[in-house]
Amino acid sequence: MLVCSRCGREYPETFRLTCDCGGTLLVRRNHFSFFGSLLPYLDMRRYLNSLPVGGNYLPPAVPAITPTAALQIGHVIGLFKLEYLHPSGSFKDRGTYVTVAKLMEEGIREVVLDSSGNAALSMALYSLPAGITTHLFVSYNTMPEKLSLLEGLGAVLHFVDGDRMAVHEMAVGFAEREGVTYVSHWLNPYFIEGTKTVAFETYEQVGVPDYVLVPTGSGTLFLGLWKGFTELKDMGEIAELPRLVAVQASGFESLCERSPLTNSLADGIAIPEPPRIDEMKRAIKETNGLCVSIEGPETVEALNWLKRAGFLVEPTSAVVLAALWKLVESGEIPDGSRVLLPLTGSGLKLT
Amino acid sequence: MLVCSRCGREYPETFRLTCDCGGTLLVRRNHFSFFGSLLPYLDMRRYLNSLPVGGNYLPPAVPAITPTAALQIGHVIGLFKLEYLHPSGSFKDRGTYVTVAKLMEEGIREVVLDSSGNAALSMALYSLPAGITTHLFVSYNTMPEKLSLLEGLGAVLHFVDGDRMAVHEMAVGFAEREGVTYVSHWLNPYFIEGTKTVAFETYEQVGVPDYVLVPTGSGTLFLGLWKGFTELKDMGEIAELPRLVAVQASGFESLCERSPLTNSLADGIAIPEPPRIDEMKRAIKETNGLCVSIEGPETVEALNWLKRAGFLVEPTSAVVLAALWKLVESGEIPDGSRVLLPLTGSGLKLT
Ligand SMILES: [Zn+2]
Ligand SMILES: [Zn+2]
Repeated sequence: MLVCSRCGREYPETFRLTCDCGGTLLVRRNHFSFFGSLLPYLDMRRYLNSLPVGGNYLPPAVPAITPTAALQIGHVIGLFKLEYLHPSGSFKDRGTYVTVAKLMEEGIREVVLDSSGNAALSMALYSLPAGITTHLFVSYNTMPEKLSLLEGLGAVLHFVDGDRMAVHEMAVGFAEREGVTYVSHWLNPYFIEGTKTVAFETYEQVGVPDYVLVPTGSGTLFLGLWKGFTELKDMGEIAELPRLVAVQASGFESLCERSPLTNSLADGIAIPEPPRIDEMKRAIKETNGLCVSIEGPETVEALNWLKRAGFLVEPTSAVVLAALWKLVESGEIPDGSRVLLPLTGSGLKLT
Repeated sequence: MLVCSRCGREYPETFRLTCDCGGTLLVRRNHFSFFGSLLPYLDMRRYLNSLPVGGNYLPPAVPAITPTAALQIGHVIGLFKLEYLHPSGSFKDRGTYVTVAKLMEEGIREVVLDSSGNAALSMALYSLPAGITTHLFVSYNTMPEKLSLLEGLGAVLHFVDGDRMAVHEMAVGFAEREGVTYVSHWLNPYFIEGTKTVAFETYEQVGVPDYVLVPTGSGTLFLGLWKGFTELKDMGEIAELPRLVAVQASGFESLCERSPLTNSLADGIAIPEPPRIDEMKRAIKETNGLCVSIEGPETVEALNWLKRAGFLVEPTSAVVLAALWKLVESGEIPDGSRVLLPLTGSGLKLT
């Protein structure tokens, strides 16, 4: 079922974004045995029994089980999870995979998104084989390379003269007027079901880390990791949740104090007012976690370090390493800690 | 040990490219139990016990276990293996991973390559964390985006005024003059050790296919699949080898008859005189395989089909689907066959 995080109201597992009270929704199911539930796949289908989809339609481009590489960083161990090795080049494919499977089950064949970033690319790529028409509302100043890629994937582009908020309002207006389903990964509870598999994989690969550092704007990956580890705890697999650290971009903080400086590099998390903010605060509280804000120059330094380590990622991915340095420096993360660092987006797109 | 494919002479497992007789080399080891040899990793390290490296140095950006997606294509089943989901965006990372591990074991810290394609990108990316200086000999007409990416990864570029052969000669001359190790993935036996893991994964994921269609220029993936399945047969895991189909680009055929037309799209396999031609012929003979040549327009059609199926790949990857269509049409591949189609390179780089 879907459960409202604000009022607790329950809904059947159909495709919906919010509660009638305006609260955000999460999927709730009873899970019994983690290892007993695994399917004999070496890709994301391994976790299908834990996902809210029937499996009568699954997108062909199945997300990978991504490698997790351990590297000594000073006196802590960084567990770099290569979440950019997915069909559209980012972790978003995990959320999209579950979402498109659900949309198909519901017979939904036309959707609207207000995005031109990784989430839009992922949705366009997965909608195409499913025969779902994807309307993308984008601002005029979106990079032409991005637009031609999205158009090449069959997305219907709607240009909006205005800022991010204007784009959002036009998209929602279109959805209401035309009776087309609005799909926002910021709200969509099925998206988080997909991203929670990062926690499952991590657990299989390296056990429970002490800390999990996540690029956090809308919180779709942050909450997925929280939900995944929480389900492992509920199943009795793990005794304690790892401490979740929300890593945010300067000037766009929603959990940390808002900084006057602006980190314009980490555009994937430049989301100052995420709708799932209450759940994010709860995740930090429950896991005794914290928030760290990263500036532009720190992002560049971390990005270069990652490149020299063989990880070709986009700037947003680099903030977790900058945060690790900061938290080790301040003594917040003690020597000997094992720290999960998901690298969320490919650097190949930018070349 | 290393064994010459021409004269049978044996060498210890050091880094070398050819036999003194000029013949090409393959690694030979005794393998006993496939499932008994697997390590509990969910990435390429799973197969380390079958690889000729000690493991005292392993590159941090470990290649993934790539998803294999089954799609009905007419009356056959296409098993699409997403070999583009690796750190540098192509299957080459498997070969590079083993190669760099071996170079490090041997204390080799400076190498020369005559390539500017996927193999060069892979080598530059993996050399950087290993502290190996990579000299790349490239022609002046290499795309500037490629060059800036390679330069950004610390590769030392040497420009050559001339064709592919001139570039090759300059690289070999530099290697001899400067005493720097020449690394050609066309010859390097350790590269094939890496690519053979595609066969191992396939076997774990979907068993033995009836046919394996491979983009084939230098033959590094083709021979890797042949060697991997042969080792599985030698271990008693499988009774018969799958039939290997070398898919080549029109105008650049080495196994099929040379076509007067030129397929300029499939540049990854535009290699008219591969040095491992004798081994490739042997693989075709041993597996009752064959060769298919694909033209430009067929490549485009297949590339578009793949995009619509959610597979964003580079043109070279598409030739295997075009070949499948052709072989089904001609009746060469019968109804009900299960056909492995490795998709070798990412389409994200071209956007
Ligand atoms: Zn509510
Ligand atoms: Zn010889």
